[in-house]
Amino acid sequence: MNSQYPSALLENAVNEFANLPGIGRKSALRLVLYLLRQDEEKVANFAGTILKLKREIKYCFVCHNISDTEICNICADKSRDNSLICVVENVKEVMAIEKTVQFGGLYHVLGGIISPIDGIGPSDLEIASLEERVKAGGIREVILALSATMEGDTTNFYIYRKLQSYGVKVSIIARGVSVGDEIEYADEVTLGRSILNRTPFDESYKLLPK
Amino acid sequence: MNSQYPSALLENAVNEFANLPGIGRKSALRLVLYLLRQDEEKVANFAGTILKLKREIKYCFVCHNISDTEICNICADKSRDNSLICVVENVKEVMAIEKTVQFGGLYHVLGGIISPIDGIGPSDLEIASLEERVKAGGIREVILALSATMEGDTTNFYIYRKLQSYGVKVSIIARGVSVGDEIEYADEVTLGRSILNRTPFDESYKLLPK
Repeated sequence: MNSQYPSALLENAVNEFANLPGIGRKSALRLVLYLLRQDEEKVANFAGTILKLKREIKYCFVCHNISDTEICNICADKSRDNSLICVVENVKEVMAIEKTVQFGGLYHVLGGIISPIDGIGPSDLEIASLEERVKAGGIREVILALSATMEGDTTNFYIYRKLQSYGVKVSIIARGVSVGDEIEYADEVTLGRSILNRTPFDESYKLLPK
Repeated sequence: MNSQYPSALLENAVNEFANLPGIGRKSALRLVLYLLRQDEEKVANFAGTILKLKREIKYCFVCHNISDTEICNICADKSRDNSLICVVENVKEVMAIEKTVQFGGLYHVLGGIISPIDGIGPSDLEIASLEERVKAGGIREVILALSATMEGDTTNFYIYRKLQSYGVKVSIIARGVSVGDEIEYADEVTLGRSILNRTPFDESYKLLPK
């Protein structure tokens, strides 16, 4: 045998799984053998669901988040504050912020951040459409909620400069010591920022509910 | 929104991946978003390859290993010793033993081991077909290479009793200290077995090549 696999069909399926991020060849084989043990109907469902997602998924016309409809549930929700836009990298961040139940405005999903190393420039992202939303008026504040990395900051500055002329308030989510963290273990940059960006304290101050 | 996912299509795909063993919901989302970023052709290939595997895979008529053909490559290989059968649980063990390049006989893939807890009895496994192979004659030795666990031993004894009357030699792979292990860290059951099952030593003795 040339291959370590007893079957080309098996090897092809292992290759497909091993191409996914974070899945090695051993895990891929385990997953494929698991699927082989299932009924054909279950496997057909697995394959069909993934293909259907790719073929039928839409991106919200307004905020560019993943959606089943032309306008996503969040943008269509009349009870939300449509003068407040939170700028995020991707759908994962929308889900993370929604989970906090601390934000009642709308989102704008960039689809990534500026990263010259990966060849991602401003034109590859939904920045022009953000400018259009702000230009159209009715926006009170744009909150930047990108990663606290060099690429995130580059993107923050780029967006800030683009929006400056429209007189909209631009803010950035707080960077500081994580809730639950001990001060002695916080890194110095974070700790420094948390002192510079200190907030008023009184009886009404409370940590987020766990 | 009722769901934490912005799209039912997305949620369905995440559910499918999260159903696989060892994949949590966070990893599932990461995998699904990765696939979403690929071309439709690549996603169609992924889905198609898995479905094709399930629909077209065959099991070798002789040894019951996964195969693309009625008789697998190993059973069809005239250069192998067809009087020697190594009994294994699954295709993974065939691949592991083939990799050692220390075995030139044929295999018999049981498709599992006897495990009353999981409701797997002898009739769920390819034990009757093993008996048939031995009964048909021409088999010199059957090597048991099942897991060194209670279930493995139960299965070993069951097979041994089934084959006893045919006068075939039944052997079991050595259990002992792993090559590269230090004696002081070997568990006492393994160490005890390795003393009981000691083998002759002379100048010709060598460890397996790494």
